[in-house]
Amino acid sequence: MNGADALITTLVENEVTACFANPGTSEMQFVAALDREPRMRPVLCLFEGVATGAADGYGRIAETPACTLLHLGPGYGNGLANLHNARRAFTPVVNVIGDHATYHRQYDAPLNSDIPTIVRPNSLWVKSADSPDSVAELTAEAVTASYGPPGGPVSLILPADSAWLETTKGAVKAPVPTRAPPASGVVEEVAKKVRAAAKPVVLLGGQGTSAKALEQAARLQAAGVRVMADTFCARQPRGAGVFQPARMQYFGEAALADLAGTDLMVFVGTVTPVAFFAYPDRPSVLAPEGCETTTLAQRSEDAVAGLAALADALGAPASGPAQPYKVADAAPTGPLTPQSAGVSVARHLPEGAIICDDSVTSGGGVAVPCATAKAHDVLALTGGAIGIGGPLAIGAATAAPDRKIVSLNGDGSAMYTVQSLWTMARENQDVTVVVFANHSYRILNIEMGRTGSGNPGPSASKLLDLGDPKIDWVSLAKGLGVPAVRCETAEEFDAAFAKAMAEPGPKFIEAAI
Amino acid sequence: MNGADALITTLVENEVTACFANPGTSEMQFVAALDREPRMRPVLCLFEGVATGAADGYGRIAETPACTLLHLGPGYGNGLANLHNARRAFTPVVNVIGDHATYHRQYDAPLNSDIPTIVRPNSLWVKSADSPDSVAELTAEAVTASYGPPGGPVSLILPADSAWLETTKGAVKAPVPTRAPPASGVVEEVAKKVRAAAKPVVLLGGQGTSAKALEQAARLQAAGVRVMADTFCARQPRGAGVFQPARMQYFGEAALADLAGTDLMVFVGTVTPVAFFAYPDRPSVLAPEGCETTTLAQRSEDAVAGLAALADALGAPASGPAQPYKVADAAPTGPLTPQSAGVSVARHLPEGAIICDDSVTSGGGVAVPCATAKAHDVLALTGGAIGIGGPLAIGAATAAPDRKIVSLNGDGSAMYTVQSLWTMARENQDVTVVVFANHSYRILNIEMGRTGSGNPGPSASKLLDLGDPKIDWVSLAKGLGVPAVRCETAEEFDAAFAKAMAEPGPKFIEAAI
Repeated sequence: MNGADALITTLVENEVTACFANPGTSEMQFVAALDREPRMRPVLCLFEGVATGAADGYGRIAETPACTLLHLGPGYGNGLANLHNARRAFTPVVNVIGDHATYHRQYDAPLNSDIPTIVRPNSLWVKSADSPDSVAELTAEAVTASYGPPGGPVSLILPADSAWLETTKGAVKAPVPTRAPPASGVVEEVAKKVRAAAKPVVLLGGQGTSAKALEQAARLQAAGVRVMADTFCARQPRGAGVFQPARMQYFGEAALADLAGTDLMVFVGTVTPVAFFAYPDRPSVLAPEGCETTTLAQRSEDAVAGLAALADALGAPASGPAQPYKVADAAPTGPLTPQSAGVSVARHLPEGAIICDDSVTSGGGVAVPCATAKAHDVLALTGGAIGIGGPLAIGAATAAPDRKIVSLNGDGSAMYTVQSLWTMARENQDVTVVVFANHSYRILNIEMGRTGSGNPGPSASKLLDLGDPKIDWVSLAKGLGVPAVRCETAEEFDAAFAKAMAEPGPKFIEAAI
Repeated sequence: MNGADALITTLVENEVTACFANPGTSEMQFVAALDREPRMRPVLCLFEGVATGAADGYGRIAETPACTLLHLGPGYGNGLANLHNARRAFTPVVNVIGDHATYHRQYDAPLNSDIPTIVRPNSLWVKSADSPDSVAELTAEAVTASYGPPGGPVSLILPADSAWLETTKGAVKAPVPTRAPPASGVVEEVAKKVRAAAKPVVLLGGQGTSAKALEQAARLQAAGVRVMADTFCARQPRGAGVFQPARMQYFGEAALADLAGTDLMVFVGTVTPVAFFAYPDRPSVLAPEGCETTTLAQRSEDAVAGLAALADALGAPASGPAQPYKVADAAPTGPLTPQSAGVSVARHLPEGAIICDDSVTSGGGVAVPCATAKAHDVLALTGGAIGIGGPLAIGAATAAPDRKIVSLNGDGSAMYTVQSLWTMARENQDVTVVVFANHSYRILNIEMGRTGSGNPGPSASKLLDLGDPKIDWVSLAKGLGVPAVRCETAEEFDAAFAKAMAEPGPKFIEAAI
């Protein structure tokens, strides 16, 4: 057994059984060792940003980490943005970063760089396995660390010689940490504050939007407490039979208007909400002035237990509201818009589907009708780094091959990690990718006005417009091996989406809005 | 004038007149300010790795920095790999990284991250302009720092409020540092060693492969000193009328065999060569045992002056050898190979062309016949992070719109930054992109054997093979707006390449090898 074997055996013994990879020379021992451990499933991604976003999607659905295999500092760099998103989603991810042999580092070969520094800001844990005997133990440590709580990406650096040298130190068991419930004193204190408040709000995030947490949160709503959720949640069940909390508005002034009069905010798996960006003369903190804030369950704590205990303390009913099933009987007609597309998505979405949402300005149009579609999960962009819609879908499809995956993307976002389409084709994943092609960074046209920058002139427009040339998304998707259609009317989209839901395998729909 | 105006004015006053950008909300003030400063040319890239690689290509040709405009930590992360390459090319690049408003950072909004840490390993200089009054001065400092010598990427962090607030501090002049010649004692000492050596080698890198440096180096060759160049050079003239030094071999054992008997290595703009990767039982340092090493010109010094002084001290003739012009009269025939493609490239390459080379295992086939083509420049992959061929070409075309640009790529490499094709189309650049489609990470199949990992089995093969599905490069390129053809024979490639050289504008050729 060499160090690479010790690594892979320890991973699979601890339920880390998917590897999203783009290897290079320094990772060849790991690649070779895969042939000796069939329990590890390797998934090739043609760019590391696809691999890391896929690991995020996998972790959000499987609730166990996937690993990535990345090629030194630059390979990690290519995956950095989606690891930023995974950090903001609190998703466990075990990054394995191949490095030069320990004795070769001193020579500063062309691919050498300061890996520990590059990975630090997006890693809960960073260590380098500088001997083959240390590999198994550090791998187990990495797996445990990735769970947090709350979870997140960790970075195990694997020098080439630690991988190729022999070792007798085989698989090590990695304990999975558990979440403690909030202390009972905390629950009582929060219950007292809620009873005393005129207009309390409970805000959910992190584990607070899990299926079990939403069941308990619905009881609070039934007891007269307004329940809300963070604007962007790592994973949230939605649709018929599911309790749907109100969503924190994206723009700060809208959020504060929505919260007007709220005198208590109780956080569950989240913290005080803040504006996504600052703007001249607009608020950063999204709690009304004078509103008291308190925490029922920290991100590291058991949100379900906390919510249940609070509901009990408030004498809430045993269950709360849930969404009805209600979709349009007829296909929408006329021009294709995000709204009409949303009606079609809601009509045809199968039970248990997973929506991976990177659709920016088009997303709202889909969310509204889907609130009463068949029950599904939504994985949102938690960290604001676009280019996650395709990668998340690859990961979700790997974790749940029996569920239909729908990836919704803005065109600007989809271009970031367009390589994902190829992996979906190669793995024959049951993913339908929708790209809303408005041929513009539309959000930036909105933001430009908000930042007080006025209307874009000729130079500014050159940086916001994607229409010259217009990307032919169908050509692009077909080139990467995914069957593709372009829809220009609501009727066309409804038919294409219905067909995509009815047939297994990868599909691509350009929604020309 | 606001801070964004102060930034852009300072940049253009210091010859930084091209901006490769993918902006977000935090950069809207910069974008708006571009409308007030027409001397700055904005070039939109659909992914930051394209923007940073383009800035590298621009700097290598213009010898002045371009700037990039990047969106917080994740935007920089997406551009990190090509900045690693730029650092290894010693190319001046001024990265402008938009950040949250200074007062908003404390709230850890979703896009917040530790930018100074992420950028540090690939930045010669890092500062944040935390007030509008500091912007102009820090911008000038950044421009100066980017020149080194030797040059490299620098990172100026621009908080949104520093951009939007008013300032009276306008353009600041940035001194451009000069390179000192090697001390005369050094030249004499080296000359003495060269005279005493049985088999001396002068190894060129960095500024040592510039046109003027090669002229002086040729004199050394004429005086009986073997002249070599680093395996991968940032910029090197090649072809008829140019002196061509021998190239350091890529694989360590081949390099040492080539250097057998060498008893002195003299470095000019470079350092002791090392193996790209370590392998079990193979050498890291690529100087023969017992060979003396010495430095004529540090990377920071004037390599041209150093070489001229050494040539004078050795009594070398006033000029040395140069390549003849010699290309095949007839088009190659039969199966398309990198070698036959190289013959065609050499036949049709116009005077003054710029080859941007990210073609990995196919590159050697082109290099050999191009050694006697019309004079051109070659920009190579200096840092080993693939995905630079398209971006470099965008930058080179922006810096030299009157020169023909040829971008040579492996298919694995080209997929990394496939978004580049769109920018070439949008800017109507005179770039011909060739992708050698072997549908494999062929280099890794070679490396796998070298690392002692044996032959790839089923799992390993899944990570090395790109053939399932086969990427349809023509469909991909057309989807991104670039006219494209597939060539399957040597004749087809010769005709397509000839046509591409004869017509201006972006062209794409899939070389099915």
